[in-house]
Amino acid sequence: MAEENVVGFTDLPVRKKREEEENGIYASTVSIETDGNKEPDCISAVIPGWFSEISSMWPGEAHSLKVEKILFQGKSDYQNVLVFQSSTYGKVLVLDGVIQLTERDECAYQEMITHLPLCSIPKPKKVLVIGGGDGGVLREVSRHSSVEQIDICEIDKMVVDVSKQFFPDVAVGYEDPRVTLHIGDGVAFLKAVPEGTYDAVIVDSSDPIGPAQELFEKPFFASVAKALRPGGVVCTQAESIWLHMDIIEDIVANCRLIFKGSVNYAWTTVPTYPSGVIGFMLCSTKGPPVDFKHPLNSIDLNDSCNKSKGPLKFYNSEIHTAAFCLPSFAKKVIDSKAK
Amino acid sequence: MAEENVVGFTDLPVRKKREEEENGIYASTVSIETDGNKEPDCISAVIPGWFSEISSMWPGEAHSLKVEKILFQGKSDYQNVLVFQSSTYGKVLVLDGVIQLTERDECAYQEMITHLPLCSIPKPKKVLVIGGGDGGVLREVSRHSSVEQIDICEIDKMVVDVSKQFFPDVAVGYEDPRVTLHIGDGVAFLKAVPEGTYDAVIVDSSDPIGPAQELFEKPFFASVAKALRPGGVVCTQAESIWLHMDIIEDIVANCRLIFKGSVNYAWTTVPTYPSGVIGFMLCSTKGPPVDFKHPLNSIDLNDSCNKSKGPLKFYNSEIHTAAFCLPSFAKKVIDSKAK
Repeated sequence: MAEENVVGFTDLPVRKKREEEENGIYASTVSIETDGNKEPDCISAVIPGWFSEISSMWPGEAHSLKVEKILFQGKSDYQNVLVFQSSTYGKVLVLDGVIQLTERDECAYQEMITHLPLCSIPKPKKVLVIGGGDGGVLREVSRHSSVEQIDICEIDKMVVDVSKQFFPDVAVGYEDPRVTLHIGDGVAFLKAVPEGTYDAVIVDSSDPIGPAQELFEKPFFASVAKALRPGGVVCTQAESIWLHMDIIEDIVANCRLIFKGSVNYAWTTVPTYPSGVIGFMLCSTKGPPVDFKHPLNSIDLNDSCNKSKGPLKFYNSEIHTAAFCLPSFAKKVIDSKAK
Repeated sequence: MAEENVVGFTDLPVRKKREEEENGIYASTVSIETDGNKEPDCISAVIPGWFSEISSMWPGEAHSLKVEKILFQGKSDYQNVLVFQSSTYGKVLVLDGVIQLTERDECAYQEMITHLPLCSIPKPKKVLVIGGGDGGVLREVSRHSSVEQIDICEIDKMVVDVSKQFFPDVAVGYEDPRVTLHIGDGVAFLKAVPEGTYDAVIVDSSDPIGPAQELFEKPFFASVAKALRPGGVVCTQAESIWLHMDIIEDIVANCRLIFKGSVNYAWTTVPTYPSGVIGFMLCSTKGPPVDFKHPLNSIDLNDSCNKSKGPLKFYNSEIHTAAFCLPSFAKKVIDSKAK
């Protein structure tokens, strides 16, 4: 968030140093605008020439990437948007100071958030993506030949435009003729969807502080459930078991109330996300039962119609099943809420 | 390595700034001695008040932890040893600038490197640990009531002493009367071991640059194989699939030549290790076949004899099996070498 994170680059000509007395650290150039005069309430620090991801969502730690060149900086109606060329992770997309994707490891997130739900139901036809403006989830959905309609509702047009300009291998998802892009609020979009429309909804959101906050709340999940057909599935970005068990506990509890089919938590490795992992909530509505842990479709053998997208890099049926196996500390908490 | 990494803390009274022109970044106080006059050949940078892990083994990225207090700094015959209190990861042990363990996430590494091998064979009796001077692997081995003898060979006594002083919940492993500590070179120790002595060998080493280098080479694996009984098992730290597929490829090829039973690669999440994951090579010698993917012992139900160590935090039988499921990009390379 603008108020939460400060990022800086000291390859810019002007360098301003300011001691963060509370934290005993220096902040270098703040090259991203913050909202008005409000002082950032979290620590801010930079390795000069590097991008450092610092946030009150993961206090006391920071992952940094070496910057070769800043390619884009802008402020949309919703957030700060930044693209830079890193020295070893390819191009990087950053929203409000938080890394959304790097070319080197985006495959893990995009493939898992998409194929975990879509491989768990027979022949998905209508799919809705909320968020996911970069187009990577669309790229993955489009590998499924059974799919006839792919709707995407992204709130921030700048994310779409920037992705098309700087991440063609990700935004390639928009080239699929089955895709319809809606620029707008996902919450409002879902409310207007006729009951039982979709086989699957994928919520590719940023963290639950800022524009994505409502996407982690009960009324939103209720709208998702209503938009799904009986036995339809949702997969939603659900934070890190190492950092945010409190948030996860709430999401699981909310989903258990709303989704009358199954409610599951899965996770995967993404090196450039905080703590190196990201989780997903996978739920189904009342109807034909969905066994998420045992995929029905083996997409790994079936990506013939996708020459422009290249082969799958990360997902396969084995890692699908493995993603639902949790460390004991997480299993204990999640099982207690999911029953 | 001393020549590879430079770490610094600017809460020390004297601060020296030096521009790394090549990389366009500043290095702050270098508070850890380096070997002689040789200039560090890699980037060096510090967020003042933070520890930054920078190495030529993972160029272009750095993970940083906020430092509350430096508790110990020393230089042993083998490496620089550092302990600090971090603000959110508990106490942290650093060797030659590389994080070895933090109190917050050490459970994942210690439990997986130990129980993956020990739960894969019936009633292990004699276990050898190479490296692992902090004692965490000993703590985990000692949960197995079938074990009668636990030998450990650690090259650096300073690591043992520092761990006993600052990490009592890790070094608790040394309190088990079945443990015998040998301070010395693991390579030499193994050569002197009578053939077929151990049921399991666990190699808890640092990265293959520096004192641990030989532990990744063919002659060492041959010594391990000789020291194991028929159908005995080894588990060795084997880097990150995201960063070091080239190293992993070599390790797998070497192990395939030496170990005539099964050869497998597994991985787990450890947030404070580079890229957030660490892998393990699991091999068995010719003899009774070992199916590493389906554990025989369910340690999760059997830690009654270990009140002082608390319950398992990470490992369970499900995550044991899941650890062998690899992302497609890694599976492709490893399968091609493991056949």
